[in-house]
Amino acid sequence: MKLSGSQPYAEQRLRELQIQLPPTPTPFGAYVEAVQTGNVLFLSGTLPVVGKEVKYVGRVGVELSIDEGRKAAHLAALNALSIARHHLGSLDRVTRIIRLGVSIVTSSDFKEHPKVADGASELFESIFGREKTSTRIILGTASLPLGSAVLLEVILEIESQ
Amino acid sequence: MKLSGSQPYAEQRLRELQIQLPPTPTPFGAYVEAVQTGNVLFLSGTLPVVGKEVKYVGRVGVELSIDEGRKAAHLAALNALSIARHHLGSLDRVTRIIRLGVSIVTSSDFKEHPKVADGASELFESIFGREKTSTRIILGTASLPLGSAVLLEVILEIESQ
Amino acid sequence: MKLSGSQPYAEQRLRELQIQLPPTPTPFGAYVEAVQTGNVLFLSGTLPVVGKEVKYVGRVGVELSIDEGRKAAHLAALNALSIARHHLGSLDRVTRIIRLGVSIVTSSDFKEHPKVADGASELFESIFGREKTSTRIILGTASLPLGSAVLLEVILEIESQ
Repeated sequence: MKLSGSQPYAEQRLRELQIQLPPTPTPFGAYVEAVQTGNVLFLSGTLPVVGKEVKYVGRVGVELSIDEGRKAAHLAALNALSIARHHLGSLDRVTRIIRLGVSIVTSSDFKEHPKVADGASELFESIFGREKTSTRIILGTASLPLGSAVLLEVILEIESQ
Repeated sequence: MKLSGSQPYAEQRLRELQIQLPPTPTPFGAYVEAVQTGNVLFLSGTLPVVGKEVKYVGRVGVELSIDEGRKAAHLAALNALSIARHHLGSLDRVTRIIRLGVSIVTSSDFKEHPKVADGASELFESIFGREKTSTRIILGTASLPLGSAVLLEVILEIESQ
Repeated sequence: MKLSGSQPYAEQRLRELQIQLPPTPTPFGAYVEAVQTGNVLFLSGTLPVVGKEVKYVGRVGVELSIDEGRKAAHLAALNALSIARHHLGSLDRVTRIIRLGVSIVTSSDFKEHPKVADGASELFESIFGREKTSTRIILGTASLPLGSAVLLEVILEIESQ
C-alpha cells in the first residue's frame, strides 16, 4: 500500500493494523495531558502504563532487556496516541509529528538507546507514514516517575481550523 | 473564591496569597533567561537559587527528603515567575502554561517524582487557576548545573498583542 | 566589528571565522533531522559525531575532562548548524535561537555543566551575535545514545516567507 503524506489516513491505518488504542491515561498530579497553542499540541510525558500501573519498571540493559525497552516505548506511544485522539477527536487532524523525545532509564554504560526508541518511532511511522516522521531526542536518565523504564515527550502539529 | 480562566488575575492572586517574587535570576553563561517567538515564551532552565546561590543541593531521596525536593521545585517556580514577569511586564499577560518540565536529581530507585514536581505545579495552579494548567514532563537526572537538586523547564503562552 | 542583530550575517561570520561546517549527519533510526512548523525549526538531538562515529564517549568529569566536554558541545553545535543550513539553504534565515538544550553524561557529583555547555553557546554567539542568543536548559544524564558524552537540543526561529 502506498501512503501519501498529504492525505489523512491515520485512523484508517489504525483499523488496517488492527490497533486498538488504550483508554486515555489520567494525570498523576496537578497537570493536564495535552495543551494546544496555535496549531501545535504539546502532550505530557507519557509512560508505559495500563490504567494506573506502570508495566515496565527498571533500567533497560540491567533489569530489562532491550526488547522489553522497545515494548515499553511502543506501549507509551499507544498511550500518547490515545491522549492525542481524545483531545483532537481524530488522529486524522495530525499533520506532522514535530518531536518525539524518548527518555530511557539506563546504567551509565548503555549505548543501544536508538533500538529502544524505535519501538515508538516505528509505531508512529506505520500509522502516520514516513512523510510525517518526527525529529527525535533520546536521553538516558537516572530514574523516571513511578519507576517507569521509559517516558515519551510528544509534540504534534495539527491542521489549522 | 471562584477563579475564571478567561480573566487575567495572576497578579491579583499573588497579592492575595502574599507571594513576593524573588529578584530576577541572571544567567550563569552565554544565554538569556527568556525568548519569545510569536505568542510563546520559552524560559531557560530555572534553578532553586537565591541570587547566585543554589539552596537545594544533592539527590532527592538520598541527601534531600521529598519535602525538601518539593520546596526546591517551589523556589525554582518562583524564580520562573520572576523571569516571566520581568520579560512580560505583568503575569496577567500569560494565557496558558503550555509545559512544565521538572528534572530531579535522584538515585536510580527513586519513584516519588510527582510529589516533588507538585511543589511547582501547585504554585502555578494557585496563581493561574486550573484552567491554565500545563502539561508536565518529569525526568530523574544524574546531576544538574551547580549541584542543584531540581531544574524547571517552563513554556508559556502569551496574549496576542 | 559591531554586529547588528537585525542584519543577517551568520554566513558571513562563518567565512570570517573560517569555520567549515561538517557534512550533514544522517539519522540513526526512524526519524528526520529537522521539522519546521510555522516559523519554528525543531532539530533532532545532535551528537558530537564525525560521520557515523561519536568522537567523545564517556562521562564528563570521569573519563573525559571539562575541556573535552566543551569540545564535544562545540562539535555537536557545528553538526546542528550543518543540519539547519541543509534544511534552510542559508543560516542567514535564522532570526533567533529559541532554545539550546545541553545534556551531558556525568557522575552524580558533577557541577561544572555551564562550562561544558558554553562550548556550544559561545559558538552560536560568535556566529549569530548576542542579539540572537538563546534560552538554555542543561541536564546531567545517566547515558546518551551511542555512548556520547553530550547531546544538544536546538530550536530555531526562522524568518517568515
